[in-house]
Amino acid sequence: MAKRPAGIPVTLPLDARSGATLQRQVYDGLRAAILAGRLRPGTRLPSTRSLAADLAVARNTVTAAFGQLVAEGYAEARVGAGTVVARALPDDLTKVAARLALDNGGTPVRNRPRISRRGRSLSAARACCDLPTLRPFQPGWPALDQVPLDLWWRLAMRVGRRLGRELLGHGDPAGYPPLRKAIAEYVAVSRGVRCADVQIVVTSGSQQALYVAAQVLLDPDDVAWVEDPAYPGTVNALRAAGARLVPIPVDAEGIDVRFAEARRPAPRVVAVTPSHQYPLGVTMTLARRLELLRLARRARAWVLEDDYDSEFRYSSRPIPALQGLDQDGRVIYLGTFSKTLFPALRLGYAVVPADLVRPFTAARSVLDVHSPVLEQAVLAEFITAGYFERHLRRMRTLYAERQQVLLEEARRHLAGLLELAPSGAGLQCVGWLAPGLDDRTAARAAAAHDVDVTPVSRFALRRLSRPGVLLSFGAFEPRQIRAGVQRLADALRDLRNGRFADEVTAGRGPEPTPHRKAASA
Amino acid sequence: MAKRPAGIPVTLPLDARSGATLQRQVYDGLRAAILAGRLRPGTRLPSTRSLAADLAVARNTVTAAFGQLVAEGYAEARVGAGTVVARALPDDLTKVAARLALDNGGTPVRNRPRISRRGRSLSAARACCDLPTLRPFQPGWPALDQVPLDLWWRLAMRVGRRLGRELLGHGDPAGYPPLRKAIAEYVAVSRGVRCADVQIVVTSGSQQALYVAAQVLLDPDDVAWVEDPAYPGTVNALRAAGARLVPIPVDAEGIDVRFAEARRPAPRVVAVTPSHQYPLGVTMTLARRLELLRLARRARAWVLEDDYDSEFRYSSRPIPALQGLDQDGRVIYLGTFSKTLFPALRLGYAVVPADLVRPFTAARSVLDVHSPVLEQAVLAEFITAGYFERHLRRMRTLYAERQQVLLEEARRHLAGLLELAPSGAGLQCVGWLAPGLDDRTAARAAAAHDVDVTPVSRFALRRLSRPGVLLSFGAFEPRQIRAGVQRLADALRDLRNGRFADEVTAGRGPEPTPHRKAASA
Repeated sequence: MAKRPAGIPVTLPLDARSGATLQRQVYDGLRAAILAGRLRPGTRLPSTRSLAADLAVARNTVTAAFGQLVAEGYAEARVGAGTVVARALPDDLTKVAARLALDNGGTPVRNRPRISRRGRSLSAARACCDLPTLRPFQPGWPALDQVPLDLWWRLAMRVGRRLGRELLGHGDPAGYPPLRKAIAEYVAVSRGVRCADVQIVVTSGSQQALYVAAQVLLDPDDVAWVEDPAYPGTVNALRAAGARLVPIPVDAEGIDVRFAEARRPAPRVVAVTPSHQYPLGVTMTLARRLELLRLARRARAWVLEDDYDSEFRYSSRPIPALQGLDQDGRVIYLGTFSKTLFPALRLGYAVVPADLVRPFTAARSVLDVHSPVLEQAVLAEFITAGYFERHLRRMRTLYAERQQVLLEEARRHLAGLLELAPSGAGLQCVGWLAPGLDDRTAARAAAAHDVDVTPVSRFALRRLSRPGVLLSFGAFEPRQIRAGVQRLADALRDLRNGRFADEVTAGRGPEPTPHRKAASA
Repeated sequence: MAKRPAGIPVTLPLDARSGATLQRQVYDGLRAAILAGRLRPGTRLPSTRSLAADLAVARNTVTAAFGQLVAEGYAEARVGAGTVVARALPDDLTKVAARLALDNGGTPVRNRPRISRRGRSLSAARACCDLPTLRPFQPGWPALDQVPLDLWWRLAMRVGRRLGRELLGHGDPAGYPPLRKAIAEYVAVSRGVRCADVQIVVTSGSQQALYVAAQVLLDPDDVAWVEDPAYPGTVNALRAAGARLVPIPVDAEGIDVRFAEARRPAPRVVAVTPSHQYPLGVTMTLARRLELLRLARRARAWVLEDDYDSEFRYSSRPIPALQGLDQDGRVIYLGTFSKTLFPALRLGYAVVPADLVRPFTAARSVLDVHSPVLEQAVLAEFITAGYFERHLRRMRTLYAERQQVLLEEARRHLAGLLELAPSGAGLQCVGWLAPGLDDRTAARAAAAHDVDVTPVSRFALRRLSRPGVLLSFGAFEPRQIRAGVQRLADALRDLRNGRFADEVTAGRGPEPTPHRKAASA
């Protein structure tokens, strides 16, 4: 026998101006009362007729609300006893109330396992989760003010109108076909890459290409050679695949193949940045490229060629990509539009041997299916209409000028403190610190003067012989570069003269200069 | 002593109308001759003066081209002997010629390792790499013709103009903050999810959320419970993490918790689709939800709640999400905009306990850094301006009507062949086949009549007791649905009457009806 109605909430807070229907408001009010324990399990609800009268709503409204409570298990319809609050699961339902009352975000945590070892290892990834700030000489930023944004939007509208719903459905996990074609033509002409359209796998930036390549090529404990110092994104991707990383030094010609040759066990993957070694800026010579390919052949290894910054070459025409020199189909060539257009675009590509297209695409479809199609279509149009080449030419001139400004200012103001090595390519160059100056301390001193230089030692896997810092010039106007050099000079002079108290070491501010700075949140 | 110039290619094919500079043409011609072996190692090149005269170009042009050949290692400058073709690496260089001559795409493959076990396993992933075609009753498609595309572009322009370059730089790997906020508000109101903005991790579709969750929560050989039959994307993501999958049957209330309870070892993750079980269409009852949470607490397991299709509910208001009922912070709630807007958008989200935001974000930054920012910003605007809710309301009505058409047509034309179960939610329903009909054969018979039905057994991990097929109605207009049902009736009648020769079984066409169909390429 059901209990008599007790403290029935006939004063449900109905609000005619609320967006919710009256039925929903009745349902919500009763459900809240059940969850809060005000209506106990087994309690009989008032008749629909009397509740409708109390609430001054149509009886149908109440009937429908009751129906829903029953359908969802909050109440039960009993023959001869009307509708009663469900007896089942009362504990759980009332505990939910406490849960619902919790402040947002203050999720309680009980009886849970730890996250996976992999999850913990990912959490410790290098330079992740933080947002970089845009100030001299923070690396990773192209000249965003030069992106032809109006043109981009016009193309987006045009492409959208022409293709419309074609672009809304499921896309090819290997990429939007016209974009694959445009990329294949571009890398063939500009980088000597030999490939058919089908060998292009569009990725969400080169980071995803690195990740997919590592997953597809490496099993846990396989050996991967990396340049030392190395790009953190490469290190992270290889580590996420469980690879054993063997750091190989970099000399004036690139990765030191002779040094590497003696290492055992042989690598399964060799990861390099031939156009513009990250972070040292060395361009791998042709001789070294051929040596590396020979070595990889002997070792039966894959070569991961991250050809970032190849587009901005100042000294001579680019040396052909390893991919174009490869005779065995062992090179995976990676490129990105993050620097040539803008980072937020998240589009890059891998050029893979034909037999690897399927595993790469399969991995992609398990990871995230494919990249957004609209942006791929706009980019395809941007390239095929010739805007991309034009933008690259303009940027090449602009970046060459900006590097000149930086080099001249450095000669004038940083002599004896920092020796800047001109870079033949890309958006950044290395400054070697005067003897006695440590690069991490220098970076902190610079940060205290509102200028960002990135310690090269941060990218080192082993101890580096020479302390240096990375200065990126691409995103900054000449006046910003001049002011930045002045501030850096002040900072380094303070440091040399013992006037910089390294407060970070003492556990107090100012913040160190991370590669990617923390966001406000 | 360098050899005398022999067959010097003074007839380099220079073309004044070519886009390339004369210097580049000279360089290209000489390099091609070296690579083709026409200029042998050690061969002395003609003097810059005589070559310039032969080619009728400025001497500077030739000097610069020579300089580049030397810089890149193709030639050497010898004191007293002018410029000679490099002796080093002749074998490699000439072999390159053969490589360069290869037809595009015909990458030769030599001395390479196999791809990783993981890569091979990914290649075998379910339903990957193929493109679905849009014909009745292919699942996975919302009504693309209903997407307010003009409005979307107008918002894109407006957002682009207002924010411009703010949207071009590096974004937050957890997602564009206004979008996180908009999603947090939406899931709280519509799904009873309890969370703060910071608990939202924007992902590239729910597939990426599944993948990241599996990576962060599961170590190899950890046990994961999945519904049987199950969504292939979930199975793929869990397998990619190396999990041991334990299939749990689904009954009329959802995953069979009592059946599961007895299984050992205990799961670390339980993956479910409570709003609309994929593919059976069951909505998990409140009672079952609470049982599942109790069981997960006892097992100390995570719960992966893929709340797909929760937005389109026809029968009653949605039952609150597991996440909102959870008291322990063990539920990872996943949603996607692929069905509510369009698949090509590639945006979804995970709502995670606050302490999991960091590992999820870290994983994201190693996988692909973050989702494209422009589309996130447009979507944020679309939601906060109220267009999303309006679109959902319109679609809910439209889909309810389309399901009605399908159910009525089926009643009229498929009686005795296929019993269609009305679906309380989502874009598809299950049709149970008459006794004696096999679902894969039925799908092939349907394909022979240009209609797509997906065998439920394709999603089964163990043998299913009852053969059924999935029919999706959301993307098709009533006339398409009517025609599709007619064709399906013809197909099933043929099959029942033994008039369908199952040619696939005999190794010839027609094609089976894959979940995602092969593209033309």
